[in-house]
Amino acid sequence: MKETSRAIVLLSGGLDSATTLALAISEGYCCTCLSFDYGQRHSFELEASQRVAQSLGVESHIIAPLDMRAIGGSALTDDIDVPTGRSEQEIGDGIPITYVPARNLIFLSLACAYAEVGQIADLFIGVNAVDYSGYPDCRPEFVEAFELAANLATKTGSEGRRFRIHTPLVKMSKADIIRTGVGLGVDYAITHSCYRPTVDGAACGDCDSCRLRRRGFFEAGVPDPTVYAGEPVA
Amino acid sequence: MKETSRAIVLLSGGLDSATTLALAISEGYCCTCLSFDYGQRHSFELEASQRVAQSLGVESHIIAPLDMRAIGGSALTDDIDVPTGRSEQEIGDGIPITYVPARNLIFLSLACAYAEVGQIADLFIGVNAVDYSGYPDCRPEFVEAFELAANLATKTGSEGRRFRIHTPLVKMSKADIIRTGVGLGVDYAITHSCYRPTVDGAACGDCDSCRLRRRGFFEAGVPDPTVYAGEPVA
Repeated sequence: MKETSRAIVLLSGGLDSATTLALAISEGYCCTCLSFDYGQRHSFELEASQRVAQSLGVESHIIAPLDMRAIGGSALTDDIDVPTGRSEQEIGDGIPITYVPARNLIFLSLACAYAEVGQIADLFIGVNAVDYSGYPDCRPEFVEAFELAANLATKTGSEGRRFRIHTPLVKMSKADIIRTGVGLGVDYAITHSCYRPTVDGAACGDCDSCRLRRRGFFEAGVPDPTVYAGEPVA
Repeated sequence: MKETSRAIVLLSGGLDSATTLALAISEGYCCTCLSFDYGQRHSFELEASQRVAQSLGVESHIIAPLDMRAIGGSALTDDIDVPTGRSEQEIGDGIPITYVPARNLIFLSLACAYAEVGQIADLFIGVNAVDYSGYPDCRPEFVEAFELAANLATKTGSEGRRFRIHTPLVKMSKADIIRTGVGLGVDYAITHSCYRPTVDGAACGDCDSCRLRRRGFFEAGVPDPTVYAGEPVA
């Protein structure tokens, strides 16, 4: 195995990161997935990441502990209500309360450390700046600036090799992402996107993340396999 | 208290970060110190950080857990011998085994999250690119690139305010740093720099960090208050 054919893929267990992993594998990378147990209010996301990693067949899957609840400041880690029923325009307007302070900055920084120790220079992250929740750390200009900083910070960047942060979804619509993933055999039924699932893990269907996901399936013309609250499990 | 007069200071418990804290306080900042319990092989550094924070009188001191031992790849977190007896030229030549992969990238990223939640925009870090151990993440070009990435990643940077990463020591010699700290009343006896202390916390005197520190006191013409192995405690 060539050293250069290995990659670290940030895997949340959502639709975007599952598609990113499938794309990295389709490009010939031997993938190590990296997920963070960062104090999410529910565990369905991490369970989904394990299902996705297993389903797509990865080299290894690291679930790293990281206490972001101690930092706080987000509806995804604190006991703050997640907004629902927002229109497309509202979702795209400003930074919502589900934003987690510096999350992708922290995740990518830790990913670089794992990558460097594993002598891996390629990282994949499923950020998307089209159908997204207005998080600043999903924009391509952030990822470009981060790549530069990471290469200046590390042995990897200082000794001739360079980290490359791949963002294959960044300019795709949610529908494009879904069509791409379906073409690569991604089983979206095992992914989890909802910010406020029921105790059984069913999606609420009404938070920003559910609304973007539902619309994506609709626009892609692909049946939505998500189990929504109140619906019977197939 | 003005919001803008608050700062987060990264505090390791070493000579450089203690001086940085004293400088931030002297500039009028009300300081929150941030230290990381990152899996260092010994606890003397963290104990020193607590003494320094208390001695200089800070608003609060956060000691954040962060398992970098799980990542590995460094003599400071793994069971790898720390080099000793290296000349100034050898210390300056290349990246040593005491380099911790992506450490300042990770520390600064987490500091931005804490800062953002606390509505703080000023961060201080005691990096130094003159008398240093050849770590790439201590260079000004890294800090500048990081500042840009952090502002693109966050609500703070996206909504008009900006993170400012202060590096007051970056171009100072170790002797200058010591003279500055002495002028500001820093008690260097309570700081800890050694990479391989005795079980009692005495400095080895021979690792890169001890050698840079010893030479700094010598060149500054300041009596070295460090307790070295084999010496009686004053």
